[in-house]
Amino acid sequence: MDPVLTFTSDFGLHDSYVGQVKGVLASCVPGIRIVDITHQVDAGNLAAGSFALAGAYTYFPAGTLHLVVIDPGVGTERDILYIESTSCRFVGPDNGVLAEAAEAAGAARIHALDLERFTGALRDTFAGNPVVEQLLREPSTTFHGRDLFAPLCGYLLAGGDPGRVTRPKKNMHKLDLPVPEHKPGRTTGQVVYVDGFGNLVTNIPAGWVDPRSEVFIVSGGHVRSVGTLQHTYGSVERGETLALIGSRGLLEIGVNGGSAASVLSAGYGDGVLIIAETERS
Amino acid sequence: MDPVLTFTSDFGLHDSYVGQVKGVLASCVPGIRIVDITHQVDAGNLAAGSFALAGAYTYFPAGTLHLVVIDPGVGTERDILYIESTSCRFVGPDNGVLAEAAEAAGAARIHALDLERFTGALRDTFAGNPVVEQLLREPSTTFHGRDLFAPLCGYLLAGGDPGRVTRPKKNMHKLDLPVPEHKPGRTTGQVVYVDGFGNLVTNIPAGWVDPRSEVFIVSGGHVRSVGTLQHTYGSVERGETLALIGSRGLLEIGVNGGSAASVLSAGYGDGVLIIAETERS
Amino acid sequence: MDPVLTFTSDFGLHDSYVGQVKGVLASCVPGIRIVDITHQVDAGNLAAGSFALAGAYTYFPAGTLHLVVIDPGVGTERDILYIESTSCRFVGPDNGVLAEAAEAAGAARIHALDLERFTGALRDTFAGNPVVEQLLREPSTTFHGRDLFAPLCGYLLAGGDPGRVTRPKKNMHKLDLPVPEHKPGRTTGQVVYVDGFGNLVTNIPAGWVDPRSEVFIVSGGHVRSVGTLQHTYGSVERGETLALIGSRGLLEIGVNGGSAASVLSAGYGDGVLIIAETERS
Repeated sequence: MDPVLTFTSDFGLHDSYVGQVKGVLASCVPGIRIVDITHQVDAGNLAAGSFALAGAYTYFPAGTLHLVVIDPGVGTERDILYIESTSCRFVGPDNGVLAEAAEAAGAARIHALDLERFTGALRDTFAGNPVVEQLLREPSTTFHGRDLFAPLCGYLLAGGDPGRVTRPKKNMHKLDLPVPEHKPGRTTGQVVYVDGFGNLVTNIPAGWVDPRSEVFIVSGGHVRSVGTLQHTYGSVERGETLALIGSRGLLEIGVNGGSAASVLSAGYGDGVLIIAETERS
Repeated sequence: MDPVLTFTSDFGLHDSYVGQVKGVLASCVPGIRIVDITHQVDAGNLAAGSFALAGAYTYFPAGTLHLVVIDPGVGTERDILYIESTSCRFVGPDNGVLAEAAEAAGAARIHALDLERFTGALRDTFAGNPVVEQLLREPSTTFHGRDLFAPLCGYLLAGGDPGRVTRPKKNMHKLDLPVPEHKPGRTTGQVVYVDGFGNLVTNIPAGWVDPRSEVFIVSGGHVRSVGTLQHTYGSVERGETLALIGSRGLLEIGVNGGSAASVLSAGYGDGVLIIAETERS
Repeated sequence: MDPVLTFTSDFGLHDSYVGQVKGVLASCVPGIRIVDITHQVDAGNLAAGSFALAGAYTYFPAGTLHLVVIDPGVGTERDILYIESTSCRFVGPDNGVLAEAAEAAGAARIHALDLERFTGALRDTFAGNPVVEQLLREPSTTFHGRDLFAPLCGYLLAGGDPGRVTRPKKNMHKLDLPVPEHKPGRTTGQVVYVDGFGNLVTNIPAGWVDPRSEVFIVSGGHVRSVGTLQHTYGSVERGETLALIGSRGLLEIGVNGGSAASVLSAGYGDGVLIIAETERS
């Protein structure tokens, strides 16, 4: 059975861009199984794209190829990456969007596409394929998702040798993400993602949160308590705020049946503070 | 060929939640065919989720498994249901969202997940599957769609015995939906769904609507006639309101080329009145 | 392997309409591979639907069947078309939405559905199929996408003879789209599509644009220069407007890291002017 390809982008679903990429993929690999992670990452938001990928890749079968096209530098000199990890593979631009997931996946071997050799390999592998021939004839400077990333994934999933079209690369770009701090009695972190329900996801891991500690959100100059850790949304009354460990294993601030982002007027980058029971007096 | 699974949720498409669930499903059942019904049910809106499912399940092949994750009570004591009907199967929370479809599908046999036996069955069935092992190791309290519903569907579609992981259950929760009334000369009902075009779908079945009767909408203290039954949108001028039998076999109020919800400032729960020709004087 | 079907509509993703159509397709052709182009075409916008299809169909494998359901005249007398071109096939309403793609695909042979013969052929081909039998029993007047287009695609992909259910037709409706003009030193065109990023796509082909010419946008009574042709978004500073050749091979006006539609308050139908270097003094 052909491996699974996941597809994450900031293309949105209003235009035909996602469909064009899938057309190229289906033209290269007839039996391909494509699963969308999301295409509604805010345009060019690398942190949100990284968060989506890093939270999802781990739920896919071994061998899955994860394609990410959040590529504000399309057509400039940035590399196109192919990364092999222990259990899965990644394709995307070298702008940091792949780094968190690729590092978490373990033992990442980083490669950069060699455009000239890739063009030759495509010609050989897909000789007579009218879709690939069209891409080779008229590549765009603004849609590498369709014209380079998709045929690269097609080439790899069709069994093409990665070594033929890439060169090894030592490092990849990483995002400058906020880093939480864990000190005795006092932990600080940030809201790193706001989901569609309005839950405020922080970068504080579950292991850092003592159930008796009090959680505060710092936003717009205000510091507000959201109480101690709860089990689930239904542990508080409808409309009330709460702190809990979310499905990503991170501290989240939510509202039962509502949006914490709205209720607390809080969002990406806002501070979160945890004060141990022993420190409060 | 593997059976079809349909997937309905209120997750939206902005986050990676839908992708995570599909990853688990693909990890359990490589050849699975997943069809999205919708993921844009308003957060926690059980009536809208029920409407979406009940209107769609009937168009799928026999044996289809319908997964619904609209689950505001996630992590609380509510049961997780597995329902077998004559032609298809359902998995979802016991909060009423499955009831309308499951009853319409006929001869529903209701079962509740037995969490302890389910955990054991998962360990046996998917021994060595890293995705399932990860779920068993770190289940969340807020995302049962990924951590319980998806592996349950995977277990069932992989041929697992439902009896091993569930216990029979007499009843399921039902939604307290508005009920239309059909009296000689006068029928009353409610708007039970507003679709993306702004059509106002009522709970009045086609068989109750005499073509010569006049249809009224009652909203915001106003009673407005939308005339007698028309054949289709194009039967009236652009921008005009009309009453017609929609694709669900229910009375709908629409606007040709526009949104009845906007034009009439009407929405969910508003009253609809049908007065027979003989009653008007 | 079963052929690919692409699906373009204005149904949106909020309701279950897309899912209902896919259910019928899966009921007719178990192994069907469906790729969504987009379902977020603005309601009834034939020009936008035509643009989506014409920009995407060319990236799909030979033999692909392209289904388009943007059908404001549903239930009226308009024909349902089946078009065969050199490399692919189309199904949709005869309202112009298919014309641009079908003509570009070459050698289009146009057919109209013969409803009576189609009904008979469905009964034969899908005898015992409960989904098709339900459609035949209770066809709607407002959802031909589900009740006629989908089973027609199912019939064709299941190997049914097109000649049995259609009659040849000389012409199809075409859209009255704006036409660009190319004169020595001066080219005029229009914005024909605004994509989800806010890029203004024009109807001026790449071959008409001399790299030294200056590009102007005319909107709201203002004429503004966007400079000469750039290579890609990153060729200008963030927030700056630019002219470039987009992924469709057409002149586009964009903003690096932003929305040209917002920055320039411009949209569909606005004028675009290209003045050759030799004409500026």
